[in-house]
Amino acid sequence: MRLALIGAGRIGRIHARNIATHPDAELALVADPVAGAADAVAAPLGVRTSADVADAYTADDVDAVVICSPTPFHVEHITGAIAAGKAVLVEKPVDLDLARVDECIAAIAGAEHRVMVAFNRRFDTGNALVQRRLAEGEIGPLEQLTIVSRDPAPPPASYIAQSGGIFRDMTIHDFDLARFLLGDFVEVHAMGQRLDSGIAAAGDFSAAVVTMSTATGAVATIINSRHCATGYDQRIEAFGESGSLETVNQLTSTVRYSGPSTSGAASPYLDFFLERYADAYRAELDAFLRAIGDGVAPSPSIFDGREALLLADAATRSATTGERVRVAPRTHPKEPNP
Amino acid sequence: MRLALIGAGRIGRIHARNIATHPDAELALVADPVAGAADAVAAPLGVRTSADVADAYTADDVDAVVICSPTPFHVEHITGAIAAGKAVLVEKPVDLDLARVDECIAAIAGAEHRVMVAFNRRFDTGNALVQRRLAEGEIGPLEQLTIVSRDPAPPPASYIAQSGGIFRDMTIHDFDLARFLLGDFVEVHAMGQRLDSGIAAAGDFSAAVVTMSTATGAVATIINSRHCATGYDQRIEAFGESGSLETVNQLTSTVRYSGPSTSGAASPYLDFFLERYADAYRAELDAFLRAIGDGVAPSPSIFDGREALLLADAATRSATTGERVRVAPRTHPKEPNP
Amino acid sequence: MRLALIGAGRIGRIHARNIATHPDAELALVADPVAGAADAVAAPLGVRTSADVADAYTADDVDAVVICSPTPFHVEHITGAIAAGKAVLVEKPVDLDLARVDECIAAIAGAEHRVMVAFNRRFDTGNALVQRRLAEGEIGPLEQLTIVSRDPAPPPASYIAQSGGIFRDMTIHDFDLARFLLGDFVEVHAMGQRLDSGIAAAGDFSAAVVTMSTATGAVATIINSRHCATGYDQRIEAFGESGSLETVNQLTSTVRYSGPSTSGAASPYLDFFLERYADAYRAELDAFLRAIGDGVAPSPSIFDGREALLLADAATRSATTGERVRVAPRTHPKEPNP
Amino acid sequence: MRLALIGAGRIGRIHARNIATHPDAELALVADPVAGAADAVAAPLGVRTSADVADAYTADDVDAVVICSPTPFHVEHITGAIAAGKAVLVEKPVDLDLARVDECIAAIAGAEHRVMVAFNRRFDTGNALVQRRLAEGEIGPLEQLTIVSRDPAPPPASYIAQSGGIFRDMTIHDFDLARFLLGDFVEVHAMGQRLDSGIAAAGDFSAAVVTMSTATGAVATIINSRHCATGYDQRIEAFGESGSLETVNQLTSTVRYSGPSTSGAASPYLDFFLERYADAYRAELDAFLRAIGDGVAPSPSIFDGREALLLADAATRSATTGERVRVAPRTHPKEPNP
Repeated sequence: MRLALIGAGRIGRIHARNIATHPDAELALVADPVAGAADAVAAPLGVRTSADVADAYTADDVDAVVICSPTPFHVEHITGAIAAGKAVLVEKPVDLDLARVDECIAAIAGAEHRVMVAFNRRFDTGNALVQRRLAEGEIGPLEQLTIVSRDPAPPPASYIAQSGGIFRDMTIHDFDLARFLLGDFVEVHAMGQRLDSGIAAAGDFSAAVVTMSTATGAVATIINSRHCATGYDQRIEAFGESGSLETVNQLTSTVRYSGPSTSGAASPYLDFFLERYADAYRAELDAFLRAIGDGVAPSPSIFDGREALLLADAATRSATTGERVRVAPRTHPKEPNP
Repeated sequence: MRLALIGAGRIGRIHARNIATHPDAELALVADPVAGAADAVAAPLGVRTSADVADAYTADDVDAVVICSPTPFHVEHITGAIAAGKAVLVEKPVDLDLARVDECIAAIAGAEHRVMVAFNRRFDTGNALVQRRLAEGEIGPLEQLTIVSRDPAPPPASYIAQSGGIFRDMTIHDFDLARFLLGDFVEVHAMGQRLDSGIAAAGDFSAAVVTMSTATGAVATIINSRHCATGYDQRIEAFGESGSLETVNQLTSTVRYSGPSTSGAASPYLDFFLERYADAYRAELDAFLRAIGDGVAPSPSIFDGREALLLADAATRSATTGERVRVAPRTHPKEPNP
Repeated sequence: MRLALIGAGRIGRIHARNIATHPDAELALVADPVAGAADAVAAPLGVRTSADVADAYTADDVDAVVICSPTPFHVEHITGAIAAGKAVLVEKPVDLDLARVDECIAAIAGAEHRVMVAFNRRFDTGNALVQRRLAEGEIGPLEQLTIVSRDPAPPPASYIAQSGGIFRDMTIHDFDLARFLLGDFVEVHAMGQRLDSGIAAAGDFSAAVVTMSTATGAVATIINSRHCATGYDQRIEAFGESGSLETVNQLTSTVRYSGPSTSGAASPYLDFFLERYADAYRAELDAFLRAIGDGVAPSPSIFDGREALLLADAATRSATTGERVRVAPRTHPKEPNP
Repeated sequence: MRLALIGAGRIGRIHARNIATHPDAELALVADPVAGAADAVAAPLGVRTSADVADAYTADDVDAVVICSPTPFHVEHITGAIAAGKAVLVEKPVDLDLARVDECIAAIAGAEHRVMVAFNRRFDTGNALVQRRLAEGEIGPLEQLTIVSRDPAPPPASYIAQSGGIFRDMTIHDFDLARFLLGDFVEVHAMGQRLDSGIAAAGDFSAAVVTMSTATGAVATIINSRHCATGYDQRIEAFGESGSLETVNQLTSTVRYSGPSTSGAASPYLDFFLERYADAYRAELDAFLRAIGDGVAPSPSIFDGREALLLADAATRSATTGERVRVAPRTHPKEPNP
């Protein structure tokens, strides 16, 4: 499959390299209106570039578009690519505004099965294995899911300002992961923490604890922080009727130190998402290529993108008002057909 | 110090044995109105018994009373013992009704420093060490505290019926532990889970997730379940500005198995509180003896007992109404003076 | 059962306390010729004392003798007690001289089933569980056994001088543990290390690695050191045809620290044998009481004590000469009958 | 740097891919006399091939040769390449015959600094970090080194037959790793195990335990097995005067299961060396490119290759005769100069 990349930033660079080294994919074009950005990514790979993203739609040698542009452009690029008959892999979130996401879904009606949203954590080996073992019934019905997700250090103030807030920017991954493992939620409560004065000044929370319940009474707890001294803290615990499955952090080395005051002291966690989810990004691309290649609706779908945002909106409201918020997940086709 | 025991049930038996083997304590009397109960505990230890608890107050050879009677009798036994000039170690909770606890505090005015509430988890080596290392600033200000507390199996329906509900009966320990590590809380949210039909029929929750915030913005999360396939799941994670401290479960053996499909498979958790907190019960008794012996107010105090119940009440309301509940902890003397 | 204790030193004190608190045992007498030694142990327990060990043999209210005297007196005390019709639990090693052990066995002929040698590690929960799971075939035939045994710090020079050398004094435990798990060995190689100048001056090794093979080709490796910065390092790994079983160290707390440069840093190991094997000493006493009470030959037997010493002799010779030494374990009755 | 690959088997394929994706390297030629072998590796990478390995020497566009031919051809290919002015990265072992290795060293006299031997484990992140931290003195002088190295399953009989025996084929890696961490050894003892009838029929051992001492009294223990139910078991423990450093196995996932009879049950080990040391192979190539590019002698050198074989010969003799064998490591320039 031949792909064009729209947006040559940090995450675009990852996708570009993964496409270039995937045996079944070819990177045909890198498009980015920012001067020099596309070249920086494309030149080492010997790929042509364009400053006009529309070139990705019109190119004859492009089957699918990977959208890594800034969030406000996602909807435009999704609809443009779909209209041009291309399949789409779009970075999360689809948009910060639920209404716009719904407009986007309406606009691409009939082609929903051609869009995949890049929730990379579903493709983490550990998370995927937990999901599979849950589905196989290894621990019985899942009753309590705990997701710990802490970034190593806060992003710059400029990033915070346009991020849509911690729930839409950071927790969005955890909302999707919770849905991946537990399905839809009907109630959301969020307790936001303003422990970082810079982030608080921007009107945002630097940490939060979210609890959400499903219609069948399972509860997911998400513990977020914008900093963690030990690195990128990424763990889940799935507690079920007859056992539990957890994932542990990946560490920077296999070495453990024991001395007079400690034993088994391990290395810190991997530092951040580019390292921690390097394999997941490759698996995600692979899943996209296979789904589109087979004419099957990819997962996570644009509907998954919408529902995660719905939860983020609810959490934002809960953290602000102190209310527990009821949400009404929309019923989407489980696997939208071509 | 010479002690009398009131209430010769399961937990009374533990205290009796610990008193009997403590070098600085002597068990003078076991009192229990239930026919035969006192004898069963006292006989093997060669201790005299009584079917009248008032004998514990009037006995000249008794300095302090350990109250292990059913919860509804705690207040009566506290006030009786204090009026008779005895010091008191009372099992948790002080009472299921906050108003009665406040009456009790009023009734013993001037002798608050003679009462200790038996929140055994403060005396667990791991919890106590986390508290000490937090106090020493090892991980900076504590930002997020997570307490996982799951019983191996639900109690009988008869127990549930008179327990006061999961928050007053089970979570009460976690409320106190959270206060031990983080101080007072100002907001409480609880999501109850009705996953066990028997417990639900009794109007109670079989599991719950509580989130609580302090005035300075720290958040504690408590994850409870009335069952856990692997045993008594008792862990905390204290996440601070510059690091974290966690405790791991105690296991039934040091053996780990590796085979074709697994590596490092350890033994299950210790089964329940009598084993898991055996050392803590001894340390608790020791702390009581030392405090009373030194004329120092013991900790946890009856005020700690009250504040834990305040949080339990708030959690009960939150779980029922769906509201986040503000609480107003009373200011008590940190260490009530003699 | 009524017991007398001969030898009121460090290990005698442990046995005295365990006897005193065992429901089926009674400590009738503590005998030690060293002035004041017996009193120091016996007085707090309200037990009578004697400066003449022979009193332990002649006392009518004594069924069995626990021998904790210095090693050179073990044989005399074993034969004396057996001649007087008492059962015997004797501390390891039986003697430092194999010929004397054989004389002792000859002298007590017909009463071997009345003597147990106190190899406490067989009664460690972890080791005992590994043995049981091996016997149940969980990992198939045992092929490679690795025992790590490191003391926290070297004993004083005076102790080293009369210890019989590292193999007879320290490794003797590991020889017995290896036999407990693998049976008899036919070849022994030992590489001694002279890393401590004081110990080297005494003609002894401060560390050693022993490899031994069984007739069926299994190999046990023992790694010893007279010091370990992290505490008392006590672990085994049993590697079998279809899996492995290992034991991990017991730690001083359940707390783990994570910070900027480390994750999951646990507490040090328990410091030394009195703490590490506290439960094992109790289980050992219990096994002795049950075996003697039931008229069954206790395990480990005096034959086990002999075979461990045989391996220690072989290791001593190997470490000195550089040769691999063949040993001829004597065939003893597996369970000597009354 | 432009490289030719000689030998397009399993390990050659790994090197080919790593060269092709290394930013500073270019794969110019794949040479293998076996019909089709070179093509299978070279075609997907768009690289030219030859059935004549001499083409690797004469090619103008080749700066260095990576030798992955069968062991008996290594010396010929090393000397050929060196004579032609190419640098060399040669797979281990240099040869199975120490005399031939010495002839090879003599033959390339003056160009030793142009040859690196591919002991991949030195480049494993964990091992390299242990070496660095040892060198920094973190645990004081290293006293006892334990290397556990177990393959998941035995190779075919045909491989065993021409392998040179377990010590020259498998333990050779551990000998080099031990030298990497502890320097030269002066005494070697090996206990071979014949637990696999097929391997025994071929005159070889299926498992072994080697102990080796250095001139300063440190001891290394190597525990090898040709099978391991849990996967590729690769661990070391470096025990020093003031602490220890160990590496733990890499697992197939981060997931841990807890249930009624187990807790924290992790996934098996990575299956074998291609996966386990994938990063190490890349780091090894990188080290080679940097050393040769900088005109610095690469490490491990051909002298390291010789000394590892010397230990393998000693171990072979020890396992066969039962003697502890003294070895006389040759003094080589630590870092042979250009």
